[in-house]
Amino acid sequence: MPDRIFNFSAGPGTLPLEVLQQAAKDVVNFNDKGIGLIEMSHRSKEFVAVADEAEALLREILGVPDNFKVLFLQGGASTQFAMVPMNLLGPGKKATYLNTGVWAKKAIKEAKFFGDVQVAYSSEESTFNHVPTPDDYQVDDDSEYLYLVSNNTIYGTQFHQFPKTDKMLVCDMSSDIMSKSLDFSEFGIIFAGAQKNMGPAGCAVVIIRDDLIGRTPENIPTMFRYKTHADKGSMFNTPPCFSIHVIGLVLKWLKKMGGLPVMEEMNREKAALLYKAIDATDFYRGHAEVTSRPLMNVTFNLPTPELEAKFVQEATAEGFDGLKGHRSVGGCRASIYNAFPREGVHKLISFMQKFEQQN
Amino acid sequence: MPDRIFNFSAGPGTLPLEVLQQAAKDVVNFNDKGIGLIEMSHRSKEFVAVADEAEALLREILGVPDNFKVLFLQGGASTQFAMVPMNLLGPGKKATYLNTGVWAKKAIKEAKFFGDVQVAYSSEESTFNHVPTPDDYQVDDDSEYLYLVSNNTIYGTQFHQFPKTDKMLVCDMSSDIMSKSLDFSEFGIIFAGAQKNMGPAGCAVVIIRDDLIGRTPENIPTMFRYKTHADKGSMFNTPPCFSIHVIGLVLKWLKKMGGLPVMEEMNREKAALLYKAIDATDFYRGHAEVTSRPLMNVTFNLPTPELEAKFVQEATAEGFDGLKGHRSVGGCRASIYNAFPREGVHKLISFMQKFEQQN
Repeated sequence: MPDRIFNFSAGPGTLPLEVLQQAAKDVVNFNDKGIGLIEMSHRSKEFVAVADEAEALLREILGVPDNFKVLFLQGGASTQFAMVPMNLLGPGKKATYLNTGVWAKKAIKEAKFFGDVQVAYSSEESTFNHVPTPDDYQVDDDSEYLYLVSNNTIYGTQFHQFPKTDKMLVCDMSSDIMSKSLDFSEFGIIFAGAQKNMGPAGCAVVIIRDDLIGRTPENIPTMFRYKTHADKGSMFNTPPCFSIHVIGLVLKWLKKMGGLPVMEEMNREKAALLYKAIDATDFYRGHAEVTSRPLMNVTFNLPTPELEAKFVQEATAEGFDGLKGHRSVGGCRASIYNAFPREGVHKLISFMQKFEQQN
Repeated sequence: MPDRIFNFSAGPGTLPLEVLQQAAKDVVNFNDKGIGLIEMSHRSKEFVAVADEAEALLREILGVPDNFKVLFLQGGASTQFAMVPMNLLGPGKKATYLNTGVWAKKAIKEAKFFGDVQVAYSSEESTFNHVPTPDDYQVDDDSEYLYLVSNNTIYGTQFHQFPKTDKMLVCDMSSDIMSKSLDFSEFGIIFAGAQKNMGPAGCAVVIIRDDLIGRTPENIPTMFRYKTHADKGSMFNTPPCFSIHVIGLVLKWLKKMGGLPVMEEMNREKAALLYKAIDATDFYRGHAEVTSRPLMNVTFNLPTPELEAKFVQEATAEGFDGLKGHRSVGGCRASIYNAFPREGVHKLISFMQKFEQQN
């Protein structure tokens, strides 16, 4: 096995080696203070500075406007599927959802606990192989928000334009946040599990417009109210300190690399290389319709499931990890997040060409 | 500053150096696989083995019976304050709580969202300086469970005997789990944030009797149902992988040290040394009544708040960190969890004696 394999995992996903090395040092002895970061009080001035810097970097790099709060919460995006409607809905209130994949479906299920749900569009009948255009659906007038998943990790589709609507958008950006620039003006809430483009598992970033924070019905428990966490700078209770620290390190790396414009360019280049290789032959077939193809999670099939299994097995032996498609859909998936090196894409393409010739 | 300070923090708390060093290595390159633990898919066979081993060690060391599930969840103990009544109560159901400190009060608040709450005892009027004996309260016949906090981290008190009642106990053991042996026969649910005796922040361990898992009312969201996590071995969604791994490393260390009997003996010895020093003089006054004194969080006062501030400041300068009492109560607090070395207790006592002489 080489010193470092190429990690195509959909999440937790590959992180920059220099981030891992710094995190490792900090675990044992943070800033030469004689104490490890993971055993340090979250109320210590050292850790408060860590959390403040992570938030400041996130705001700077992503261009978060002042009227949005940035929260670092536990429970993953899956907890946000419930927290969004817990905080924004209630009896008699309605929200609109676009059903473009597994994660959207899960969010729809949770929303139904707390209000009426309009599913304005579903691509389920075509195996979630595309996302809709604004002409494909109507949003009910009395809807509180339009919910979408910007990038569907499992089936591999991505919105390249956000919906045009007078409703505010609530968006699960778990698998494409920080991959490109963002205009916040149409969003009410953006959330994302950290473990793809931002850091380790164990932390979800929630970016929420100020005016949405105080609307929660009275019967919602303390930990599930956004206000609880917003009022205490995400330190109402002990936060996921290590995850927050590594998010800060990833953001420092991202800034040093040139920020989102550079990252987007690199992501477009990596994805284009891979799609070109897929389109060059009938042996590999991309799952998504071309206009919905994502930059982050490239899903494709081979002629037979047997060949797919062989492909994954031989790829793994050569140091390409995580190419097996999600257990719910099969096929192959190459997740090429920000930290995934272009070199790995080139090497995968060579491997794909060799595999095709031999099979 | 010495290579390693003495960390008296109440949580996140001190961890064994050898655990930190192993964790650091694994962050960069886990088992020489060429991939860091924190960027590895939680569905990979490597991480599944990590999680399985952590659970197996926890079961072995704590003697968890087969009819209990062990869950690794996010959101801290504070989320359990709500999840317990969400899963066990509902309209018309009642639970009994013992109000012995800040964390008990918070749990009482959340339980009221989901059922009737009997507060059978409160030590609030005596600044939570003791826990009750079984004769001090009655549990209502129609109560579903008796809830208690075994060790009150903030005020520094501990139950040395669990309540005798025909009701099942639900216990927040955040700050004394793994500090001594446990008889599970009277418990329905035990939960604990990891960040004191078990590992880093970002993970709560929930140990729940099988038959309690299927009782949740239908209107509770997926992520807040114990069954969701029990059915999927705590991998319904991406778990806090790093925290779980470090918990496993701490448990390995604990087993190597001799397990809970040895740990309890060491904890009793460390606490006895410190209480002896406090009792030897009127300069230091322990907060808790003697029969409620905890092994984990030794709280004490000096003659004046000014002297307390000076004490903490000078102690910090000499490499004793985290001795300031919780911001809500003041005074001093020395948290001496499993991983806190006896040497540090001896050195603190010497410092206390010196400080008294000089002030």
